[in-house]
Amino acid sequence: MKPILLHEDRLFPVDEKTRGIARELYQSVRDLPIISPHGHTDPRWFAYDENFGNATELFILPDHYVFRMLYSQGITLEQLGIRRWDGGESEADPRKIWQLFADHYYLFPGTPSRMWLDTVFKNVFGLSDMLCSDNAMDYYEFITAELAKPEYKPRALMDRFNIELIATTEGALDSLTHHGHIKDTGWDKRVITTFRPDDVVDASREDFVTNVAKLGEITGEDTTSWNGYLAALRQRRQFFREHGATATDHGHPTAATADLSVAECESLFSKVLSGDSSAAEQELFRAQMLTELAGMSVEDGMVMQIHPGSFRNHNESLFKKFGRDKGHDIPMQTDYVNALKPLLNKYGNEKNLNIILFTLDETVYARELAPLAGHYPCLKLGPAWWFHDSPEGMLRFRHNVTETAGFYNTVGFNDDTRAFLSIPARHDVARRIDCRFLAQLVVEHRVADWEAAELAQQLSYNLAKNAYNLG
Amino acid sequence: MKPILLHEDRLFPVDEKTRGIARELYQSVRDLPIISPHGHTDPRWFAYDENFGNATELFILPDHYVFRMLYSQGITLEQLGIRRWDGGESEADPRKIWQLFADHYYLFPGTPSRMWLDTVFKNVFGLSDMLCSDNAMDYYEFITAELAKPEYKPRALMDRFNIELIATTEGALDSLTHHGHIKDTGWDKRVITTFRPDDVVDASREDFVTNVAKLGEITGEDTTSWNGYLAALRQRRQFFREHGATATDHGHPTAATADLSVAECESLFSKVLSGDSSAAEQELFRAQMLTELAGMSVEDGMVMQIHPGSFRNHNESLFKKFGRDKGHDIPMQTDYVNALKPLLNKYGNEKNLNIILFTLDETVYARELAPLAGHYPCLKLGPAWWFHDSPEGMLRFRHNVTETAGFYNTVGFNDDTRAFLSIPARHDVARRIDCRFLAQLVVEHRVADWEAAELAQQLSYNLAKNAYNLG
Amino acid sequence: MKPILLHEDRLFPVDEKTRGIARELYQSVRDLPIISPHGHTDPRWFAYDENFGNATELFILPDHYVFRMLYSQGITLEQLGIRRWDGGESEADPRKIWQLFADHYYLFPGTPSRMWLDTVFKNVFGLSDMLCSDNAMDYYEFITAELAKPEYKPRALMDRFNIELIATTEGALDSLTHHGHIKDTGWDKRVITTFRPDDVVDASREDFVTNVAKLGEITGEDTTSWNGYLAALRQRRQFFREHGATATDHGHPTAATADLSVAECESLFSKVLSGDSSAAEQELFRAQMLTELAGMSVEDGMVMQIHPGSFRNHNESLFKKFGRDKGHDIPMQTDYVNALKPLLNKYGNEKNLNIILFTLDETVYARELAPLAGHYPCLKLGPAWWFHDSPEGMLRFRHNVTETAGFYNTVGFNDDTRAFLSIPARHDVARRIDCRFLAQLVVEHRVADWEAAELAQQLSYNLAKNAYNLG
Repeated sequence: MKPILLHEDRLFPVDEKTRGIARELYQSVRDLPIISPHGHTDPRWFAYDENFGNATELFILPDHYVFRMLYSQGITLEQLGIRRWDGGESEADPRKIWQLFADHYYLFPGTPSRMWLDTVFKNVFGLSDMLCSDNAMDYYEFITAELAKPEYKPRALMDRFNIELIATTEGALDSLTHHGHIKDTGWDKRVITTFRPDDVVDASREDFVTNVAKLGEITGEDTTSWNGYLAALRQRRQFFREHGATATDHGHPTAATADLSVAECESLFSKVLSGDSSAAEQELFRAQMLTELAGMSVEDGMVMQIHPGSFRNHNESLFKKFGRDKGHDIPMQTDYVNALKPLLNKYGNEKNLNIILFTLDETVYARELAPLAGHYPCLKLGPAWWFHDSPEGMLRFRHNVTETAGFYNTVGFNDDTRAFLSIPARHDVARRIDCRFLAQLVVEHRVADWEAAELAQQLSYNLAKNAYNLG
Repeated sequence: MKPILLHEDRLFPVDEKTRGIARELYQSVRDLPIISPHGHTDPRWFAYDENFGNATELFILPDHYVFRMLYSQGITLEQLGIRRWDGGESEADPRKIWQLFADHYYLFPGTPSRMWLDTVFKNVFGLSDMLCSDNAMDYYEFITAELAKPEYKPRALMDRFNIELIATTEGALDSLTHHGHIKDTGWDKRVITTFRPDDVVDASREDFVTNVAKLGEITGEDTTSWNGYLAALRQRRQFFREHGATATDHGHPTAATADLSVAECESLFSKVLSGDSSAAEQELFRAQMLTELAGMSVEDGMVMQIHPGSFRNHNESLFKKFGRDKGHDIPMQTDYVNALKPLLNKYGNEKNLNIILFTLDETVYARELAPLAGHYPCLKLGPAWWFHDSPEGMLRFRHNVTETAGFYNTVGFNDDTRAFLSIPARHDVARRIDCRFLAQLVVEHRVADWEAAELAQQLSYNLAKNAYNLG
Repeated sequence: MKPILLHEDRLFPVDEKTRGIARELYQSVRDLPIISPHGHTDPRWFAYDENFGNATELFILPDHYVFRMLYSQGITLEQLGIRRWDGGESEADPRKIWQLFADHYYLFPGTPSRMWLDTVFKNVFGLSDMLCSDNAMDYYEFITAELAKPEYKPRALMDRFNIELIATTEGALDSLTHHGHIKDTGWDKRVITTFRPDDVVDASREDFVTNVAKLGEITGEDTTSWNGYLAALRQRRQFFREHGATATDHGHPTAATADLSVAECESLFSKVLSGDSSAAEQELFRAQMLTELAGMSVEDGMVMQIHPGSFRNHNESLFKKFGRDKGHDIPMQTDYVNALKPLLNKYGNEKNLNIILFTLDETVYARELAPLAGHYPCLKLGPAWWFHDSPEGMLRFRHNVTETAGFYNTVGFNDDTRAFLSIPARHDVARRIDCRFLAQLVVEHRVADWEAAELAQQLSYNLAKNAYNLG
């Protein structure tokens, strides 16, 4: 049995002088409250405050980082108990699944998943031996027993984790019942929603036409007309704002934007609504909608998040069996400088517009994103995202964007996760890496120690709060 | 009040052994004369040697690095006193502008601008407190008063800065009056021009047709014919060479080259000259002209600099109000391996051709540029450019190109600036970073200490002199 | 005269703690046998075990890394004695060529070639002074004399180098006579072939049509029909497997794959076989063939290596004079996420498929390759290739892929060389860099010391053996 690695100086550079400064900066921010302005936790948890289930349900089934690695080494999703869409059988015994996971825990060194998991095992559950085949069942039983205790209920964990605010993400058609329930319990300041209208904007989805019809039903607008559709969206935005939303989110395949005439919009809208549109028309519609939604943000002040560049569901046969979000989304090359031009031509200099750009294509950090955010007042850069939400990824982000965009055109950290228990671990990695980056600037006499201290505070707390209008 | 950061070991790695070697290498090159073979200073300064104006005029109005950052944080160009094309009002009080700049100086830590400015404030003016809201007016008055003294005249600064040679950049139609005046004062060896024919080559410019007509007037050639146009260009090159030019410069959107038949050239030329050409035809014409100009370089020995890949004037409404070079040029993805093929097919193995390639797209360093320059005898690599003219950018350049292209296929440093007072600061950064890179190679036993010393000298002085034929 | 640099701590980071751990890890793997599962040595050497020729023949003429650098600095290939295709004259005196090389040895610091060459000079020949103009002839005579001794015969070197297994690479039409001869001498376990069918798959080659006809003659299949052609390929795969092959190799310009119907395949095949196909048809045929060959790998278990992204023979006039592999292959931007989709749709989840992906475009490491290999069970990542087979290149590889793909989706090191004597030097660089990378993870508390030790062993030996089915 080997101990869990969780050294207090983890992720700091080895050089004593730099490590000392990193450590000091980190000490000054480690206990700051967590602002989690973008993520995918389930509002149900916070609304009804029920205990979580067993270890397997909590740590394996929802974590596509974990099962994509296992799958890449020949373990099937059936063996991991992932439910099949087509009704085929999957492993039902959570213990067997946990044992399989433990048997392959040796695959994870060097990945952020290993660091997040170890942090949770040790800091949340107090475990001290590293997970392995031999202690798998002890782990399983212990965690599962702990999860049944009151102190592991979602709201108790929220307090324990010092989470000041968490934003969930809901589709345009969501009733926001759980958020409503949260509000009714007098807890409304801490869990907010985010408006993600992809389901009624992305005409390549199987359910797009149905969704737009539902949008009409919900809002009482005639969503078969372009104007009615826009009015319905405005109405939903208002409804989301009433449930705390300060931001929207857009997960498009590309960052394409467009600026068509009203007549062109009307015609394109009927085409995509006919259910018989081409891929190019669907892309153009998404592009036009980003511009429309930016216009609505100018009106209502909602912060716009753009998350482009993922080739969703790359593994066709896996998708047919298991559906979305099963670890087979692959990043693509993504252009911003041409793609965003139509939107920026129209709204780029608006005072009341805040767009946060994300990318899965790190080549654009220094080439496109930092120059764009270092010029346009409406643009800021989201943190290193998804595959790049990792120590190396975060370092590359800072090294590549800072010299052109500075720190104040970035927005702090997003955990962007559905793995609630890992949230403190994720923010901790971000704070450590930012302090490490700042410490290097200090020892190389590129920023002053007092500036680094100020910036550590900004990167850990203030920038997120300001960028998302959570002040 | 905080002191200006300007530690003697700035930008060196923290490790004592490496820092020691970096420091030693740096000591051996820090006082070498500055060769500035490519930049945008105003020849007027050196011709008439008049004092500069106030601090705001010198440090803010012409520095798009500075005002792009301020603009990105919501300060308008009007507030910064940038003159509007359309006659709209801009702030006229240089003190107010300076105060605004000082109030936002906290935006710059981690950017090269901060390091350049601090170096100038301290090393050129002897200031010791960091610029902030409180000392803004003291700074303004002090700098403005100093600028009026004889020791701050351009030629005095040129001596103080130990600039051995500086090249300016002029359009093909320039009369080179100021360079002529410099020559007449017996000072001709130190300020030379560079031939930049974009104004008569880039048919996408509003003034292209007029410019080609002017080219005809100036040279007495019939520039309505392809042959006359080429003859006129040859004549201008000769005229520029008489004013010291050893190099040409080409700022095209892409690195595309072409090799058309004479008949095709003639037909394309009349098309672009008609003022009614498509974007594709304009691109093809620029592409063909790079090859034509390479052919002229084979004839007359002028070194050819290619600076592709900037999306100029990305912010449409800003461009309409304020025009070019206002901090809204954004880098684009740039291909070289296919783009340069036609030119290289024709002239790639010519003994008498020297082409220096630059890029804003760092992904091509290791993938395209180092392999191209590590093979073709006519190709060399310019230093990290513009957004990448920074400590991190320079390190990425060396780390990515050296293993394939070595050091001798690179050409030393270019400051490429119009900010005359920052020239020593910029060369200083380059020398520090190169010494740092070499020191790392030494401590990792990858190059010998005596090799590093030789290379430091080459990178700081000799390579630039040789590559630009300034020997 | 200066000593050769070959410090026992070369390539390790300077920090004492990290260096200590790197050194210890390295000590544990430095003497492991070499597995060389992909390369281009000549099977003749091992079959007939004759002495090599002189120093120039061995070190300069076949090493395009060396002469591309010399060529880039104005030395002609004629001066280097490279044989011209067109019968033109080249330098014939190996001493003159060696002297020229020595005179320009100063061009190489910072390149892997310098480190490989110095390692061979010192470790294989026992030389201690660095090569320079003055000692050039001593070097030449000494090396040439040594090469004539029995201990420098290929098989003796194979033992001395501790090479457990080496794979050569042969075209589909190769008779494998030398491998047959090796087998007959009872030495069959150590030198195996690899099936590289580019000559009968790439219809852009001048000799494609002839090659397919020869394929028919050799196999007795009717290679004018699609089915006969496929049957012939299957037969050749079987023949290669009988000569030890466990893998195939595919050097396509892009990673494009396709999945056409049989009728489309038949029609495309007759088109390319007509010798009158377009570039697009040739690309589609290569794309379809990757998928066909993957299908054959599913059947026969051969590991598939894909090496895409080189623009071969970029220098047209050099190609006409000197032919292929003369240092003028230039990497291109390469897409995998879209390109591989058709193949992966068809075979991506097959249990019996192993594809090793290589790239010359490092931008895909974190963006495409690590996510693909971190999901698809059939995909693994080959090591940093060609221009990136270097200390910096290897570090970029590990830093960019590990967090998403881990270590077990990589396959250890390939030397990929025809420079037999440099093989230990190349594996030594890889082992040092991997140990360095692991040591950094250890000192930053990201992996445990015992994990690092296990991983060092995997990266140096086991992963290669497993990935190529050499167990």
